[in-house]
Amino acid sequence: MTHPEAVSDAKALIRHLRLRGRLVRRRGKEPGSPPGTLVHTGERRVESMALQTFQYGGATVSERAPTKVAECFPFAGAPLVTWLNVDGLHDVQLIREIGERAGLHPLVVEDVLSTGQRPKVEDYDKQLFIVLRSLAWDEQREEIEEEQLSIVLGDHYVISFQEQPGDEFDPIRARIRNGKGAIRTRGADYLAYQLIDAIVDEYFTLLEKVGDRLAELESEVMTRPDQATIHEIHRLKRELLVMRKAVWPARDLLNSLIRDEFDLVSDHTRIFLRDAYDHAVQVIDTLETMRDLVSGLIDLYLSSVSHRLNEVMKLLTMIATIFIPLTFIAGVYGMNFDTMPELRWRWGYPAVMAIMAVIGVGMLIWFRRKSWL
Amino acid sequence: MTHPEAVSDAKALIRHLRLRGRLVRRRGKEPGSPPGTLVHTGERRVESMALQTFQYGGATVSERAPTKVAECFPFAGAPLVTWLNVDGLHDVQLIREIGERAGLHPLVVEDVLSTGQRPKVEDYDKQLFIVLRSLAWDEQREEIEEEQLSIVLGDHYVISFQEQPGDEFDPIRARIRNGKGAIRTRGADYLAYQLIDAIVDEYFTLLEKVGDRLAELESEVMTRPDQATIHEIHRLKRELLVMRKAVWPARDLLNSLIRDEFDLVSDHTRIFLRDAYDHAVQVIDTLETMRDLVSGLIDLYLSSVSHRLNEVMKLLTMIATIFIPLTFIAGVYGMNFDTMPELRWRWGYPAVMAIMAVIGVGMLIWFRRKSWL
Amino acid sequence: MTHPEAVSDAKALIRHLRLRGRLVRRRGKEPGSPPGTLVHTGERRVESMALQTFQYGGATVSERAPTKVAECFPFAGAPLVTWLNVDGLHDVQLIREIGERAGLHPLVVEDVLSTGQRPKVEDYDKQLFIVLRSLAWDEQREEIEEEQLSIVLGDHYVISFQEQPGDEFDPIRARIRNGKGAIRTRGADYLAYQLIDAIVDEYFTLLEKVGDRLAELESEVMTRPDQATIHEIHRLKRELLVMRKAVWPARDLLNSLIRDEFDLVSDHTRIFLRDAYDHAVQVIDTLETMRDLVSGLIDLYLSSVSHRLNEVMKLLTMIATIFIPLTFIAGVYGMNFDTMPELRWRWGYPAVMAIMAVIGVGMLIWFRRKSWL
Amino acid sequence: MTHPEAVSDAKALIRHLRLRGRLVRRRGKEPGSPPGTLVHTGERRVESMALQTFQYGGATVSERAPTKVAECFPFAGAPLVTWLNVDGLHDVQLIREIGERAGLHPLVVEDVLSTGQRPKVEDYDKQLFIVLRSLAWDEQREEIEEEQLSIVLGDHYVISFQEQPGDEFDPIRARIRNGKGAIRTRGADYLAYQLIDAIVDEYFTLLEKVGDRLAELESEVMTRPDQATIHEIHRLKRELLVMRKAVWPARDLLNSLIRDEFDLVSDHTRIFLRDAYDHAVQVIDTLETMRDLVSGLIDLYLSSVSHRLNEVMKLLTMIATIFIPLTFIAGVYGMNFDTMPELRWRWGYPAVMAIMAVIGVGMLIWFRRKSWL
Amino acid sequence: MTHPEAVSDAKALIRHLRLRGRLVRRRGKEPGSPPGTLVHTGERRVESMALQTFQYGGATVSERAPTKVAECFPFAGAPLVTWLNVDGLHDVQLIREIGERAGLHPLVVEDVLSTGQRPKVEDYDKQLFIVLRSLAWDEQREEIEEEQLSIVLGDHYVISFQEQPGDEFDPIRARIRNGKGAIRTRGADYLAYQLIDAIVDEYFTLLEKVGDRLAELESEVMTRPDQATIHEIHRLKRELLVMRKAVWPARDLLNSLIRDEFDLVSDHTRIFLRDAYDHAVQVIDTLETMRDLVSGLIDLYLSSVSHRLNEVMKLLTMIATIFIPLTFIAGVYGMNFDTMPELRWRWGYPAVMAIMAVIGVGMLIWFRRKSWL
Repeated sequence: MTHPEAVSDAKALIRHLRLRGRLVRRRGKEPGSPPGTLVHTGERRVESMALQTFQYGGATVSERAPTKVAECFPFAGAPLVTWLNVDGLHDVQLIREIGERAGLHPLVVEDVLSTGQRPKVEDYDKQLFIVLRSLAWDEQREEIEEEQLSIVLGDHYVISFQEQPGDEFDPIRARIRNGKGAIRTRGADYLAYQLIDAIVDEYFTLLEKVGDRLAELESEVMTRPDQATIHEIHRLKRELLVMRKAVWPARDLLNSLIRDEFDLVSDHTRIFLRDAYDHAVQVIDTLETMRDLVSGLIDLYLSSVSHRLNEVMKLLTMIATIFIPLTFIAGVYGMNFDTMPELRWRWGYPAVMAIMAVIGVGMLIWFRRKSWL
Repeated sequence: MTHPEAVSDAKALIRHLRLRGRLVRRRGKEPGSPPGTLVHTGERRVESMALQTFQYGGATVSERAPTKVAECFPFAGAPLVTWLNVDGLHDVQLIREIGERAGLHPLVVEDVLSTGQRPKVEDYDKQLFIVLRSLAWDEQREEIEEEQLSIVLGDHYVISFQEQPGDEFDPIRARIRNGKGAIRTRGADYLAYQLIDAIVDEYFTLLEKVGDRLAELESEVMTRPDQATIHEIHRLKRELLVMRKAVWPARDLLNSLIRDEFDLVSDHTRIFLRDAYDHAVQVIDTLETMRDLVSGLIDLYLSSVSHRLNEVMKLLTMIATIFIPLTFIAGVYGMNFDTMPELRWRWGYPAVMAIMAVIGVGMLIWFRRKSWL
Repeated sequence: MTHPEAVSDAKALIRHLRLRGRLVRRRGKEPGSPPGTLVHTGERRVESMALQTFQYGGATVSERAPTKVAECFPFAGAPLVTWLNVDGLHDVQLIREIGERAGLHPLVVEDVLSTGQRPKVEDYDKQLFIVLRSLAWDEQREEIEEEQLSIVLGDHYVISFQEQPGDEFDPIRARIRNGKGAIRTRGADYLAYQLIDAIVDEYFTLLEKVGDRLAELESEVMTRPDQATIHEIHRLKRELLVMRKAVWPARDLLNSLIRDEFDLVSDHTRIFLRDAYDHAVQVIDTLETMRDLVSGLIDLYLSSVSHRLNEVMKLLTMIATIFIPLTFIAGVYGMNFDTMPELRWRWGYPAVMAIMAVIGVGMLIWFRRKSWL
Repeated sequence: MTHPEAVSDAKALIRHLRLRGRLVRRRGKEPGSPPGTLVHTGERRVESMALQTFQYGGATVSERAPTKVAECFPFAGAPLVTWLNVDGLHDVQLIREIGERAGLHPLVVEDVLSTGQRPKVEDYDKQLFIVLRSLAWDEQREEIEEEQLSIVLGDHYVISFQEQPGDEFDPIRARIRNGKGAIRTRGADYLAYQLIDAIVDEYFTLLEKVGDRLAELESEVMTRPDQATIHEIHRLKRELLVMRKAVWPARDLLNSLIRDEFDLVSDHTRIFLRDAYDHAVQVIDTLETMRDLVSGLIDLYLSSVSHRLNEVMKLLTMIATIFIPLTFIAGVYGMNFDTMPELRWRWGYPAVMAIMAVIGVGMLIWFRRKSWL
Repeated sequence: MTHPEAVSDAKALIRHLRLRGRLVRRRGKEPGSPPGTLVHTGERRVESMALQTFQYGGATVSERAPTKVAECFPFAGAPLVTWLNVDGLHDVQLIREIGERAGLHPLVVEDVLSTGQRPKVEDYDKQLFIVLRSLAWDEQREEIEEEQLSIVLGDHYVISFQEQPGDEFDPIRARIRNGKGAIRTRGADYLAYQLIDAIVDEYFTLLEKVGDRLAELESEVMTRPDQATIHEIHRLKRELLVMRKAVWPARDLLNSLIRDEFDLVSDHTRIFLRDAYDHAVQVIDTLETMRDLVSGLIDLYLSSVSHRLNEVMKLLTMIATIFIPLTFIAGVYGMNFDTMPELRWRWGYPAVMAIMAVIGVGMLIWFRRKSWL
């Protein structure tokens, strides 16, 4: 038998397992394994891993989808920029091979595979290693879907690793193909900027979704709040925390790319990164404002609940206050004493009824005075 | 049929759509479009865009309202200061033309058009790009109306972009025309300062409105709070958050103009900027104090609601406490047992009534002792 | 007809107008007027403005109360220190004249007149401009009275501007007159320190008043809290915010006087300023502790209100729990069925009464077990 | 007699003693004893202390479990790395002997013994002294078990002190034994890094446990919260505070190891430490997010309790509202007046019953309108 | 007549006076008196002031208890260290004399006498002036007793001023006398460190007391919270604030002693000060954790109060829900209509009783379903 509670419990269980997964992502390796041990920790999100390379520069563009790592290397010489994009991370052997051929530090490969990394930038002399978190709204689960994007920036190449194929880079691919914008005339650092910018752009899309949800909840709280409302507010708060964990370090990362004098980032690209930095700060401003609004909503909800309790109590009190004394009077004249002169009076009954009416109406007037009605 | 709830729901919907708009303003371009793509993102607020130029210096003043961009350029030579003001931003082509002729960086033009920018100052060698948010109280919607003001400061010119024509710069125009104050004897940086100062001045006017509202709500909470009060408090809190998002970065901007050694800002103007900086800090101090007061109001409201609940409960309890035992006694003597000697007693009825009176009065005295009455 | 509510509303209105005034003080000029426009913004607090000068040095002291600005200037030569004190600010012309003769920057004069300035120190080459807020407890309004004190420190003179004559500087005047302490042997910077120190000393006096009030409210909350208590707590919180707005920047000001190498401040005086700085920090520590205590009081008040609600509810519940079943039993034997054998039994009535007593006493015992009594 | 309350009190007492122990750990010495006085302050957690040494380098590995301190010293010469691990700290004499032979500063020995140290790194010229707190989940007590790990890093040796033998270092021992990973080819600083990394790894395991608990509590609060739930939330909050106290300073420690130019830490190891630092920051991010979620859970719990109170009150109000008037009517016709014409009417009884039904049903409809049913 | 409330009010008054005294300690002088005016501000805590001197170095120790200041001066020459300890501060003349002979700055003497100083270190070229707050648990008043300890460190002497004789320095005296530890072989700075360390050690003792109290309150809140509990929690919070005000600046003081290059503090002593600094940080960590726990306790208390209110309400509701309808039925059959056929039926009475039983039991079952029982 599956009654609703069991179902809701089961749902809660599933949700809880997901919550844990979202809060804590294990490092890539068993505790105690040596640094550089390669294990993929995220869920396997795609059937098979896919490689894609672009080589471009000025008028030249060549695009390939190699099936073996060997086909991608060595990268084209300096005037050309090579972009190697990897979708899916479960084939550890393949990633390791890329790492070896591209001369990545073992810790970089480990970080690419353990997908719970915090956004950061690390300088390995000839390479910059950048980790970002791509965020998207999962309409079905009504929560934020996180994905790790790892970028290795060399002097004339960019390698990007995604957990699953996404369409956020399609406009960049299109621009490389048709040579729109300045992308083909610039170096690998500009390409890396474009990837970062695409991720930051996604944050705005997400903020809009969350802002919608917030506005919905606000009008719900103001008009007809119920227990589900507060659960939704709590969930929204949680999603804001998830965003926060991704965006704050992304801002630091961008700041570091602008301020620290990395040789691989040209002054020209730095101006564009400053723009991306501004956008990250704007996202953070909005996030923090939303957090304040959410905590305001909780206050509002609680006050609304108190208010309704008050209303109910007032009604109860008024009814009790009016009828309890009247019932008492009726009780008195229901007593069976032999000598109760009022009972024999001709106008006793109407008189008592009149007294009762006076008391009742008097109380109503008193309540109106106290503005309880 | 449109009953009140439907109406209030519709209002809530409209408000919600506006809230979203105020929280998140899309960047100027579709996600994924190349940097420098020009799209205007704000609402179109004016029918047609208007250009206005001033050229002044010492005794010379000339004012024009050109209809084509070409008429504005080239700007007059160095001893004269040129101020080009643009009202309305929807004609992307026109803005682009100004950008090209004035030699603006593509990112500057993009930021001018996407009106959700955070206040900031950016140094482009020969130009300073300053973004500020102008705030005004919209009496009708009872909320803050935001507008983006973009200022480009060159060595002998200022270009300002507004979303809609406003009267906050009229006094500056008047001073240029009639040569009052020192404005005509000073450079373009002083003009830029005057524009910034006018915006910061508006913040004070706004603080007064908000302070009025806060004081009103405080006396409302103290005298006759109801559910609408808490909604108003919440809205006020929201408006304070909107102001905060505009003023904090404005302070940083002013600080940067004073501390960073921008060549375009003279030491003389820096002293005046320090004054504007002080005012921004003063606005922030007041804002934060107001935020503290608002959160105090919420506490006050909740305690006031609890208090009234308490009052109601005390009344209910007293009435129940007095009449429930009396009703029980009446009930006892309403029983129909054959042998109830008290019923036959001559003074039975008066005795019972007297006992009831004693119990009732005793309870009243007890309540007064407990200071419940 | 003026019934109490109207009166309390009127009071609330007055209070509200004052609150606004205390929260937001307009700048000295209309929005849009040029910088340096001179308008006095505070309330006019004195009938007529008063000038007072001291000239001293070693054994020399001369004290005057000139009626015209011209009489004060030029100041005596370098070995002597001149102190010009101005009480009242409404005569803009007079202040302007002082400003011109003393060579003050127009912004300084503007700040002197607009009495809502934030405490700050500004360096104008030959002069230091210091703004402080003097705080005193207004016994009548039971709130903090703020006043702006502006000090201009030159190499051998000090000009001080007060909104109204106060007695906080009388001890300094006495010491100058009778040569007690080191004041006559030291420079203008030491005099400025003495003025600042007198203001900081006032903060301690104020803290004592506020501390008294806090302790009173604490014992009130613990013994017999009512609705007025929470209003008082809220007001106290507001006064603490007012103090905070004045004291925090005063600390920064003192820190700046100690750390920044102003030529006008000698090392000897710096040691004394360090002492004043320590006191300001001490005031801030105490203020923040008080803020924590106030927020604790609010928690305490709310829990106390809940507690009393609980007590009332428990009483109600006990009475209902005891009498409702008994009344039901009485009701049963009040039914008029023809065949109710118990009614005919000889010992029916006493038996029922005994059962009722057992039930009642049993419940009382049960309540005591549950430690509700 | 042991009734449940006594038992729960006894449990509370034990818990309380433990809480005190966890909050405040005495320093190693009596107050007032001279610095360097050696007393062990933690609980004695093992029967007898155990020593274990590794000497390795390239292909050489030798492992011993000496019973006397003298057997451990002197350490092997520079190309070899020596690791001396000490389990258990109660034998003060033994620790003192190690301290003397290894040339430790008296304060280091004191800190090793007083196991309440805060994580820190201290530079003693020829040695780095590192203190960390190892955290593990004690399944039985359902709380975090803390242990102090002290590491002394010399130029070719590492001495580690543990309160009790743990298995967190077994993988490192295994790697030394079988030469897997790079450990044998690197210096003592790399070994120290491995120990630190093992501790940080444990934090992730712990976060998972805590994350599980948090998710469980969240679903509990949403489905069927009771008083125990809030106690559990409070306990979880406490455990988060315990973790926080251990992890924040660990982050600072790692930062210091990376930034400060300690001669004993090579650049190569620094890259790995940066990795450990990233993990510590990730742990902190998650901890802070969890703290936010826990405080959200408390809000949720309270609102859920309010909600249920509301439900109960509504039911009570409805029943009272329906039956109190009806009972009053019945009471009226139970009065014994001689002249009550209705009582004589033929259809009096059915009419009254009908009226009662109408009133009752009317109220039910009214409640449904108010959406209380 | 002294009834309990009056007594508790009087107690509250005393407590309140003490609270004020603890929150705000007047500066040593009347507002407006010149800097360096000497007045003692604390309570007079000892009958007569006592002087004690130690002179030591290597094997030499001499200890005296002079009755006149003149006997203490001049201090012994450089290889010997002189420690002059002064107990009690009310004899201003005596302190002034010490100040003059020891060459103290007037502000130092003023600070020694005004015992509300904030912990700080001040550099007067040839002397360091250190102020600390000694904290002890006053068992009788159940609150923290504060005392100011002022230390003047010269190149070969230490002067310490205490408000009253305390035993916290006895172990130091003992070590000087019997030459245990390194104290006799080191300079005056090491002695100063020992005094500071003794004070910091006291903080740990205090934390244990407070930790005990906290754990007690926690178990009280979880098992049987009442109104007194919340008052105790509030008091504990207050004591934590008192500790905080003393310990945070003590940490800054120690940091300053370590970082700032004071000539009077040798590198050797600096290592020990670093140890004291670590302990101060540890105290602060624990304090802040306790503050979090205390605020958690308040939440717990409030939820526990709500919970009990809920329990009581549920009982009330159940009883009302069961008996109110039954009483109504009884009331119906108590009506005196002539024609009520049920009253004549043979089985009318038992039938009605059975119906009532069915209704009652049905409701009980329903409640159990709703898991209210």
